[in-house]
Amino acid sequence: MSKKIKKIAVLTSGGDSPGMNAAIRAVVRSCAYHNLEAVGVYRGLQGLIEGDFKELGPRSVKNIINRGGTFLKTARSQEFKTKKGRAKAYKSLVDSNIDALVAIGGDGTFTGCKIFYEEFNFPIVGLPGTIDNDINGTDYTIGYDTALNTVVESIDKIRDTANSHNRLFLIEVMGRDAGDIALNAGIGAGAEEILIPEQNLGRDRLLDSLKKSKKSGKSSSIVVVAEGDQIGKNIFQLAEYIKENLTEYEVKVTVLGHIQRGGAPSCFDRVLASRLGVGAVDALLDGKKNIMIGLVHNKIVHVDFGKGLEGENKIDIDLIRVADITSV
Amino acid sequence: MSKKIKKIAVLTSGGDSPGMNAAIRAVVRSCAYHNLEAVGVYRGLQGLIEGDFKELGPRSVKNIINRGGTFLKTARSQEFKTKKGRAKAYKSLVDSNIDALVAIGGDGTFTGCKIFYEEFNFPIVGLPGTIDNDINGTDYTIGYDTALNTVVESIDKIRDTANSHNRLFLIEVMGRDAGDIALNAGIGAGAEEILIPEQNLGRDRLLDSLKKSKKSGKSSSIVVVAEGDQIGKNIFQLAEYIKENLTEYEVKVTVLGHIQRGGAPSCFDRVLASRLGVGAVDALLDGKKNIMIGLVHNKIVHVDFGKGLEGENKIDIDLIRVADITSV
Amino acid sequence: MSKKIKKIAVLTSGGDSPGMNAAIRAVVRSCAYHNLEAVGVYRGLQGLIEGDFKELGPRSVKNIINRGGTFLKTARSQEFKTKKGRAKAYKSLVDSNIDALVAIGGDGTFTGCKIFYEEFNFPIVGLPGTIDNDINGTDYTIGYDTALNTVVESIDKIRDTANSHNRLFLIEVMGRDAGDIALNAGIGAGAEEILIPEQNLGRDRLLDSLKKSKKSGKSSSIVVVAEGDQIGKNIFQLAEYIKENLTEYEVKVTVLGHIQRGGAPSCFDRVLASRLGVGAVDALLDGKKNIMIGLVHNKIVHVDFGKGLEGENKIDIDLIRVADITSV
Amino acid sequence: MSKKIKKIAVLTSGGDSPGMNAAIRAVVRSCAYHNLEAVGVYRGLQGLIEGDFKELGPRSVKNIINRGGTFLKTARSQEFKTKKGRAKAYKSLVDSNIDALVAIGGDGTFTGCKIFYEEFNFPIVGLPGTIDNDINGTDYTIGYDTALNTVVESIDKIRDTANSHNRLFLIEVMGRDAGDIALNAGIGAGAEEILIPEQNLGRDRLLDSLKKSKKSGKSSSIVVVAEGDQIGKNIFQLAEYIKENLTEYEVKVTVLGHIQRGGAPSCFDRVLASRLGVGAVDALLDGKKNIMIGLVHNKIVHVDFGKGLEGENKIDIDLIRVADITSV
Repeated sequence: MSKKIKKIAVLTSGGDSPGMNAAIRAVVRSCAYHNLEAVGVYRGLQGLIEGDFKELGPRSVKNIINRGGTFLKTARSQEFKTKKGRAKAYKSLVDSNIDALVAIGGDGTFTGCKIFYEEFNFPIVGLPGTIDNDINGTDYTIGYDTALNTVVESIDKIRDTANSHNRLFLIEVMGRDAGDIALNAGIGAGAEEILIPEQNLGRDRLLDSLKKSKKSGKSSSIVVVAEGDQIGKNIFQLAEYIKENLTEYEVKVTVLGHIQRGGAPSCFDRVLASRLGVGAVDALLDGKKNIMIGLVHNKIVHVDFGKGLEGENKIDIDLIRVADITSV
Repeated sequence: MSKKIKKIAVLTSGGDSPGMNAAIRAVVRSCAYHNLEAVGVYRGLQGLIEGDFKELGPRSVKNIINRGGTFLKTARSQEFKTKKGRAKAYKSLVDSNIDALVAIGGDGTFTGCKIFYEEFNFPIVGLPGTIDNDINGTDYTIGYDTALNTVVESIDKIRDTANSHNRLFLIEVMGRDAGDIALNAGIGAGAEEILIPEQNLGRDRLLDSLKKSKKSGKSSSIVVVAEGDQIGKNIFQLAEYIKENLTEYEVKVTVLGHIQRGGAPSCFDRVLASRLGVGAVDALLDGKKNIMIGLVHNKIVHVDFGKGLEGENKIDIDLIRVADITSV
Repeated sequence: MSKKIKKIAVLTSGGDSPGMNAAIRAVVRSCAYHNLEAVGVYRGLQGLIEGDFKELGPRSVKNIINRGGTFLKTARSQEFKTKKGRAKAYKSLVDSNIDALVAIGGDGTFTGCKIFYEEFNFPIVGLPGTIDNDINGTDYTIGYDTALNTVVESIDKIRDTANSHNRLFLIEVMGRDAGDIALNAGIGAGAEEILIPEQNLGRDRLLDSLKKSKKSGKSSSIVVVAEGDQIGKNIFQLAEYIKENLTEYEVKVTVLGHIQRGGAPSCFDRVLASRLGVGAVDALLDGKKNIMIGLVHNKIVHVDFGKGLEGENKIDIDLIRVADITSV
Repeated sequence: MSKKIKKIAVLTSGGDSPGMNAAIRAVVRSCAYHNLEAVGVYRGLQGLIEGDFKELGPRSVKNIINRGGTFLKTARSQEFKTKKGRAKAYKSLVDSNIDALVAIGGDGTFTGCKIFYEEFNFPIVGLPGTIDNDINGTDYTIGYDTALNTVVESIDKIRDTANSHNRLFLIEVMGRDAGDIALNAGIGAGAEEILIPEQNLGRDRLLDSLKKSKKSGKSSSIVVVAEGDQIGKNIFQLAEYIKENLTEYEVKVTVLGHIQRGGAPSCFDRVLASRLGVGAVDALLDGKKNIMIGLVHNKIVHVDFGKGLEGENKIDIDLIRVADITSV
């Protein structure tokens, strides 16, 4: 039988994403609501090892729902990848009378959590927090919607200035393995072409398409390129290639970079994070462990860590068609 | 057998919402993609009666995906509520060789469309465009997500200034019959209380809650009030009532009003509008009529106009719980 | 001869404004730069009386330059208006070995500071922090530029939805005594009419103007109303009056309220606040006291507290002409 | 004696900037106000040569004050650099009975205008429109304030995500010859270091400064680099250099690019543009020609085209000191 849960720790790990603070807040306030103690772990799994803990009450998390990043900070931990490191982490938890852990992060975090659970049978639930939307078992990850808005707003500004003729804008967005951001933000921004890792358009087809687009009367073109796109990398080399082969265009490059990880979270991400945070404490109180809390079809779901959460291709073929049609 | 569709008209009707332009653009470009002609109808159903039409090609809808409102304008039409008015509208369509109609709007629009279809057997599909999210048969309406962000960003600004003690902010948001905006934006903005039409909290419980909130150490409180809330209206009267009964608060009122209808659409709304617009032309080409195109569980669905689209209560009881817990 | 300054306190007082945090940061870091100690006073002049102090180093003020409000909080102090209260405040400063004070606020704050200086000969400099821009001796107050952007962005959203004909939007903005926000934001937002306290347009001239505007082909109109406008208050009554006398318009009211006090400060306000904060410490080190630091013609100036800082009418008659011309 | 002016043309030339539309609007409405005809010239000086003109009334410029870019478009014209090209332009103007020209742009535009005026004695006034603020004779150029806000908002997002330790963000902003954007936005964004063309910090001093900054307890650093900075270019090479020499940092690069040219203009830029546009028509009606309209110390000024408008170093040495102090 499970030990009764009286004290829950929460941490953020891996790349940060907008809405992580809202998730922490929901976990902490949910603890208060259920008369449980809440503990914040600073600097992710590394802070877990080092016992970098702080008691958190409902007022500790005020005025953070609207802030990007994570006030608990995040860090990479090589030490947690070692058995010794994880043993230290377990000791830290036990020493502080912590009964369960909520870990907010992505793939790497969940992999670590799964091993940790298996070694110590310590109750642990994960919340999907990453802008890349590359986690299976949930329709959305915390931060993804905000990142889409950030990209789209940036491209809107570029569009303003695209009045001069003959301009081709290459815009690099995040997504080393997943094209979700590029595809959705590309549709939202009205991009002429979208280059994603999941699909190899090929340089020649890109050139053909840009030529056709020019002939159809477009005076400027916007191409959204995911970092991990097969023909896009390196974007500056791609720009050179296009310049050489499409002399009618003046080619400009923008690399959005870490802008995409920040910003005040969208309402969608705040509500998602709040629901998942509440769901995490509900699940722990219900005796669940070794699971991720997700949102599928607008309902809270529990997904076993063992089920392979690492993102496989979720690219919706219908969306590629929508992109093709609306960029006619 | 259905007549082959060669020319499609598109209009926006009722209150406008951010993303309507993206939907029009998707319809027009989808027509171009399928080698159909597209016609824009200005000023909604009234423009339909008056034959206020303009041919639209793919370049006619450039640089509008990022703009709030609707470039086709919208208007209320009393005349369309009469049989004579609708007969004129039918004649306008026939005279211009238009084979099908896409109508973007809310409840009222769909009711009119249904009658029109029944009278003239004219192929017509609807797209849900309203910030209120009060249409059955779709998870989201076009403009709703943007409105949520607008409300949340506004309340974030109010939160900044809530540092002085003892301030109570009452913020009126849209929603005469539906509390979706108030509830979701209230959670997203971290409101202490949320007053919605679907639930009568009662003035006394509100006062109790505000007093408790004060005791728990909160130095300021934000109350989100839907227009149609039963105790909230009129918000200025509510403010007076609170002032009289909760002397420890300085009460401030903000009425967001039509700010909520505008703004550049969010990425979510642009992608939603693009998918629905493409889906509308797909459906018409597939011989469908008298339906609304919706998005349910991230898939395009067809909903019969007859099925009662008028919004009934979609308030998610789980969300009310999340609001209660996260405002602890 | 002045005592050598080794420790400087900083406080914010009165209504908060965006950029106050940037000013505090500049004072604190300027202290560090000059090897002085810095002390933050919480809750304004009331905190001064109560000795609510905290030592601040350069890292204490990190990540606040972009935040609205003031992390030192602000409060009204009736006690500071009494001789006894001010004596307590003096004692608090002396007890903590504080040699000088930087007070960020508006009129009321400076009046209090002047009396305090006269009673105790305590070195004190003021920084103009208020969204109203109603302080003489400086071209700009901290927060004013941000408030203008907030108003203009809000009205932009309303403009999006003004496509339907015959709509008149009344938008109340801050400015009980000063029309600067209304006039500048009105020009920036392209308002048809701007009602300010300094000028009594008269209800009839307003009606005439709106009728003329309608005849000239405008399908919707935006009227910006300063709180303190002589015909505008109460804005809801004005709305009723217009409805009765201009039946061709559907009249809508938005009260922006405290939204205008918040938000991330604009770059202009951050740079202004940084310059003034650095200037305050420079002035104190230079033996100055009983002055406000202002910016005139892009240069730091020192203005004697005695010179009547209370805002008199700074309305630029040229701007009224620009408003008239550009709303043709 | 000057010919009486009855018809004024307006064009935008060179790189576009936010607020150009507001300036065009002010020129056109000012013409209407004074009962003059207004003509829009499309595609800048090239359109002038080709007679690409359109009559503009007050309603032609509605709903553009809030839009980035320029609806008249802009283009580079090699032909206008030839005497023959300018003669064609003159003929186009005369053929259309245009009596005077308002040209909105930067350096290059004004140089062309000056030659054109000298050759044909054609009344022409310029308005400073460029994000770079590199025009002498005016305190501000149209678009500069908006660009500063865009840069600062972008860096705010990066700051959100800078919680993880040991991160160094290099952010490239516009400014090939002028460091105004980098310096002001750098102060506004709280950058640790700012690299500008006017000042050669030297790679070694940069490394030293970053090391010192690290020792002082900063867990992350933001370096703003103007395009034209002497050690900054190429920013990717600079990144490599830092990586090699400062192993304690993870270095990330963002190239903001054309994002900085777009976006809805700030209130400041809209009011500036409106005042300058009104001032241009006033000046022409007053018989002035061959001048730029500027704003100095908040007053409209007339600056002779001959006076060397090309931007020389306007960098304020005080600002560099403020940057140094506030990044302590």
